[in-house]
Amino acid sequence: MKLSDLGEFGLINRIEKTFQNRSRQAPLGIGDDAAALFVSPGKTLLATTDMLLEGVHFDLATTDMYSLGWKSAAVNLSDIAAMGGVPRFCLTSLGIPQGISVEQINELYRGFKTLIRKYKVDLVGGDTCRSDTDLMISVTMLGEAEKGKVITRAGARPGDRIFVTGALGDSAAGLELLGPGVGRKGSKSALRTPHSALIDCHLRPTPRIEVGRKLALSGCVTSMIDVSDGLSSDLAHICEQSGVGAEVYAEKIPLSNEIKRTKDRLKTLPLHYALSGGEDYELLFTVPQTKMKKYRSLRMPAKEIGVITRGEIVMVNEFEERIQLVPGGYDHFKE
Amino acid sequence: MKLSDLGEFGLINRIEKTFQNRSRQAPLGIGDDAAALFVSPGKTLLATTDMLLEGVHFDLATTDMYSLGWKSAAVNLSDIAAMGGVPRFCLTSLGIPQGISVEQINELYRGFKTLIRKYKVDLVGGDTCRSDTDLMISVTMLGEAEKGKVITRAGARPGDRIFVTGALGDSAAGLELLGPGVGRKGSKSALRTPHSALIDCHLRPTPRIEVGRKLALSGCVTSMIDVSDGLSSDLAHICEQSGVGAEVYAEKIPLSNEIKRTKDRLKTLPLHYALSGGEDYELLFTVPQTKMKKYRSLRMPAKEIGVITRGEIVMVNEFEERIQLVPGGYDHFKE
Repeated sequence: MKLSDLGEFGLINRIEKTFQNRSRQAPLGIGDDAAALFVSPGKTLLATTDMLLEGVHFDLATTDMYSLGWKSAAVNLSDIAAMGGVPRFCLTSLGIPQGISVEQINELYRGFKTLIRKYKVDLVGGDTCRSDTDLMISVTMLGEAEKGKVITRAGARPGDRIFVTGALGDSAAGLELLGPGVGRKGSKSALRTPHSALIDCHLRPTPRIEVGRKLALSGCVTSMIDVSDGLSSDLAHICEQSGVGAEVYAEKIPLSNEIKRTKDRLKTLPLHYALSGGEDYELLFTVPQTKMKKYRSLRMPAKEIGVITRGEIVMVNEFEERIQLVPGGYDHFKE
Repeated sequence: MKLSDLGEFGLINRIEKTFQNRSRQAPLGIGDDAAALFVSPGKTLLATTDMLLEGVHFDLATTDMYSLGWKSAAVNLSDIAAMGGVPRFCLTSLGIPQGISVEQINELYRGFKTLIRKYKVDLVGGDTCRSDTDLMISVTMLGEAEKGKVITRAGARPGDRIFVTGALGDSAAGLELLGPGVGRKGSKSALRTPHSALIDCHLRPTPRIEVGRKLALSGCVTSMIDVSDGLSSDLAHICEQSGVGAEVYAEKIPLSNEIKRTKDRLKTLPLHYALSGGEDYELLFTVPQTKMKKYRSLRMPAKEIGVITRGEIVMVNEFEERIQLVPGGYDHFKE
């Protein structure tokens, strides 16, 4: 069905019906000038927003709409995870170009809903406009955390151990395997195959909500960030905000079996994707020496990769050489 | 200065410095994964988001960046006003195409800041990306209201009087006077002149924060909406959500002296702009008969234009003819 047959308010009504979430926490549901929300008494409110733009963040020739909806929720949920919070509410804004059908928008919302419902998050509002150019999705995620238990980027101290969950680089390798898309306008072709686990990591990342939450409640963590720009950039964010340096050991940086198996098909070394790729949405965090015993008892799915120092940010390679680690993540405005 | 010289994180640092708002309510300021915010105890949280897209909502040939920043704040503040709330925090996402300079982005934020500071609103986060096509601005505004004093669209009852603040149609008439822009790419020309009050209304609308607040606290109002789509559409939203009809009197619909004076330069009648134009950001609200005395004592800058009924939505014209009032506001997906 064409969007012009449904109209703007028809689309909004349909979204409202899909999400059906007049809850005790969001009694108005969607459809008023603003959402009215009940935040738990005494909690700190968390708020984050991230935009996904066609041609910049995604290519409709290499992603399906379900995955795109999923990912637009995931990147925002991941920011709440990185603060140690519980996600609660979200708002979505869509700029929709001609040629996108009602069915495609439904698929996008289906992927979005699948992920937010997993974490009991309510969609409470948004905006829907025509776009004269590309598809764009802007999501705002609201969450809660206990006062005094919000984990920022600014608390790392020299001597703290550095940990990262999961494996790094899979998403960036997956993006490379997808290849340069030919764009929505250039092709009507479906997704490229084969769909490896790396590609799945790129298209449908899993935010580390439960881990972020456990870490925050444990009191063992002094700083935390999600790996969205690549380890080198995100570690630099922690160091900058905390006023510290770091030493990481190249051979300890966690790489998946999948990326190791696929390495002959990749343009460069797996470690490069881990350092500079980004979009892993794993959690990078620091634990002080005094909390290590308690931390170990939590049995988190994370690996120790280095230590916070008073010096520069360096990586120690397999030959024990110390290399300065320069942020290699994506800069939106670099030419 | 080119954005590529400053870089993504340079731009974020500059925005952070401009807004400098680590307050007691938003202790982290900008720059972590999510903002951490303190909502006043016992209050209901309000959340709204609105997007402005180049080519759809604005044309850089007919708006300056300061006004664009101002307006992107105003349209979101207006939604908080329409709920009777106090705006508190906001987040901005920008998609910035090549060719936009650092100075232009500064101007945009200067306009944005001027308006939000007027209402003591803190910018607490956002996202900044390259756009491959046009400029896009997405704003999320968070506010607060007393529990039980949030004014929705759903409370109008037959017999309630209908009021609207200010004058309607000026913004749409101003847009027409600006004329079709030739686009950022087509021209480097500055703003068109003459700058009449109508054009100002379109470029720098004033959200009715104080009025919305007084009305909500007075307990006199049963429903409220801001006039963003035009009187015919926004009245229809109230009627639909409240399950009622309405009768409005054409000659009571408030028109400014400016639009009356300019009417020979406009393509159609001033009333048309009031009914179908939109972007006035005035408040449309209903007051029950029993509250009229108290309401009168508030001396609000609003005019009575009709009454809520059990029937259709009709307009009574100067010849006492009853005309069905069909929503004539902008539909983003109408072809």
